[in-house]
Amino acid sequence: MQEVNLKVIKGGITAPRGFKAAGMHSGIKASGKKDLALIYSIVPANAAAVFTKNMVKAAPILVSMDHIRGGKAQAIIANSGCANACTGIDGLADARTMAQATASVLNVRENHVLVASTGTIGPRMPMKNVLNGIRTLSKRISSDGGIDAADAILTTDTRKKEIAVQVKAGGKTFTIGGIAKGSGMIAPNMATMFAFITTDAGIPAFKLRAYLKEAVERSFNMTVVDRDTSTNDCVFLLANGEAGSLMLFGSAEKEFKQALEYVLIYLAKEIARDGEGATKLIEVKASGADSISNARAIARTVAGSNLVKSAIFGEDPNFGRIMAAAGYSGAQFDPENVNVFIGSTQVVKGGKATAFSNNNVRKHLKGKEVLINIMLGQGVQMATAWGCDLTYDYVKINAKYHT
Amino acid sequence: MQEVNLKVIKGGITAPRGFKAAGMHSGIKASGKKDLALIYSIVPANAAAVFTKNMVKAAPILVSMDHIRGGKAQAIIANSGCANACTGIDGLADARTMAQATASVLNVRENHVLVASTGTIGPRMPMKNVLNGIRTLSKRISSDGGIDAADAILTTDTRKKEIAVQVKAGGKTFTIGGIAKGSGMIAPNMATMFAFITTDAGIPAFKLRAYLKEAVERSFNMTVVDRDTSTNDCVFLLANGEAGSLMLFGSAEKEFKQALEYVLIYLAKEIARDGEGATKLIEVKASGADSISNARAIARTVAGSNLVKSAIFGEDPNFGRIMAAAGYSGAQFDPENVNVFIGSTQVVKGGKATAFSNNNVRKHLKGKEVLINIMLGQGVQMATAWGCDLTYDYVKINAKYHT
Repeated sequence: MQEVNLKVIKGGITAPRGFKAAGMHSGIKASGKKDLALIYSIVPANAAAVFTKNMVKAAPILVSMDHIRGGKAQAIIANSGCANACTGIDGLADARTMAQATASVLNVRENHVLVASTGTIGPRMPMKNVLNGIRTLSKRISSDGGIDAADAILTTDTRKKEIAVQVKAGGKTFTIGGIAKGSGMIAPNMATMFAFITTDAGIPAFKLRAYLKEAVERSFNMTVVDRDTSTNDCVFLLANGEAGSLMLFGSAEKEFKQALEYVLIYLAKEIARDGEGATKLIEVKASGADSISNARAIARTVAGSNLVKSAIFGEDPNFGRIMAAAGYSGAQFDPENVNVFIGSTQVVKGGKATAFSNNNVRKHLKGKEVLINIMLGQGVQMATAWGCDLTYDYVKINAKYHT
Repeated sequence: MQEVNLKVIKGGITAPRGFKAAGMHSGIKASGKKDLALIYSIVPANAAAVFTKNMVKAAPILVSMDHIRGGKAQAIIANSGCANACTGIDGLADARTMAQATASVLNVRENHVLVASTGTIGPRMPMKNVLNGIRTLSKRISSDGGIDAADAILTTDTRKKEIAVQVKAGGKTFTIGGIAKGSGMIAPNMATMFAFITTDAGIPAFKLRAYLKEAVERSFNMTVVDRDTSTNDCVFLLANGEAGSLMLFGSAEKEFKQALEYVLIYLAKEIARDGEGATKLIEVKASGADSISNARAIARTVAGSNLVKSAIFGEDPNFGRIMAAAGYSGAQFDPENVNVFIGSTQVVKGGKATAFSNNNVRKHLKGKEVLINIMLGQGVQMATAWGCDLTYDYVKINAKYHT
């Protein structure tokens, strides 16, 4: 990533002007933890979304896909603890009812409400609790409420994921805020997890869609925990224009897009770092590829390989698994041109193992962030992917998570 | 699979007439375990092979790809403990030297020798030990030696994988024998692991290739442990004609092909059952698909999902993860037509969770073999895939396996 003209500020989704939010325990999660979030813009915002490519789509995804068509949104109602997936026509009615109830208490249009659910697949939503919760939240929303919303969308996550940045673009200062959740069921190239992004820039919906798609390609689509894609993933971007309109050309547009990408990559890395059971963030750079798609395929495949992930958990400099994963990524390349670095140590030169110092590499592998650099020597394209190590705790979390 | 007209007999790769083998510790593995296998046919056999699709191919793969072109083979020299991959031009010379030495001691043509190596990627072959081993093995080969060869190709496997069957086809009795190794780095659709198959049927090479390709599609290509594809995978099939020629049409051909498929599926299931750290074999049937490729994609994706595998380790009837994995398999289908059974209990009906008895399903999940049946309601095509659960021991084996 290039240097970006932005300032990271405190806060998250309610940092941009004109956004309010709240989060609470409504009674979906048995644990008593927060499970319902409401995000609200004081005016209808232009909006764009990216949804899971899974054929099996949860009810709220279907409702939000329908509602986003007009390119406008004013509220997001999101819950954790129940995915409302594989719930049939009744589940679809529940998701619609969530949108209707939110529209009603906030006095906004029903098709300006986006719905998102995450949690266990199968069970119905406890609608009485949810509807009570929506009423309560509509009274609680505030410009400090972003942090509670960030909390209320978590499932197996161990911590909140939020960020806010300010960017100067075309003489105006815009704020972009974001929250995300995601820890397991994280696969690349399918839109992943939840991320809700707000900005006070005024940007038409068709532009928002293009910005979001491009930024998602370089962030959430390059993040992999377990190569499982959820039925409920979505990324929403709302731009309410409260800080004025963005100039849609030149350096103003470029700076805004870079700031948006910064926010998404930050959240993507946070998700990888907080991958289920993870102890390390893995960053894989594939450079010198003959195409961007080959670079992405290699970076993602290496970051997602169970064997690479296990080796990194074991702090073992297993370059062979890196080479093998690159080789089965589907990308074409000549293995004899490949150089691989783990941290700053070259472990493969011209496709062959180097006589590297195990100690140097192990020292790097003991850290919290492991960098793998794969130089393909085929061209000038590059891509970066993020993942995490595969640990006993990943298995434990997913073996013990009962339906 | 249909009922097959065959008899499982004792033995493995040396059960068919005219095959001899031996296995020994030559000094590649530090553990002192067997690490070198030699398989020999008393006459040149027609031969076919399937190789890894990994772009990064080990040196022995390159040599065997070259040698198999003529459609003939008389010997296989295979080792475990060292993959001879990422070893550059020197490694290639080592693999060629292994073939030359084998040809020399057995007095066969060099291009009738196939070479296969498995083990750690990176290190060079300890050629002095290997060449001594080849000389020793050439004196030890016998028609009882199949079991030692089966032993000598293992790496993290916990047990030998061998089978022999007799099939009556066109009035003749043919024997097919096979051994395999494979425990980790098992991904579908790329030819997987090692499997060496022998038969005393006389079959021309072009037919052998077709039989092998078809049988591999339904067996090894439907087996998944970790979705990692090795640099060294290969399947060799040698047919030496010592029991006469197979009639290449009608029921004789069909019966032989079924027997071959039986052998490959047996070995494929053995590999899945012995997946690294596995405690359970998972069999996933996808039926009612609109195409065989969609059926295969769904069966393999469900069998390979880390989340499904973890849930089964935890003996949790997590149908949601099964639906989600089917949904991201890339296959097109209407989720509302889908029925899913775990064992004999229906857990999803018309895409919706049923009110199934957790106890019944858990009882099935406590067994050593877990059956998942996915009925898509789109057409008449079906496929079966095999995998295993994801356990603490998988992580342990792969985190502790040091380069």
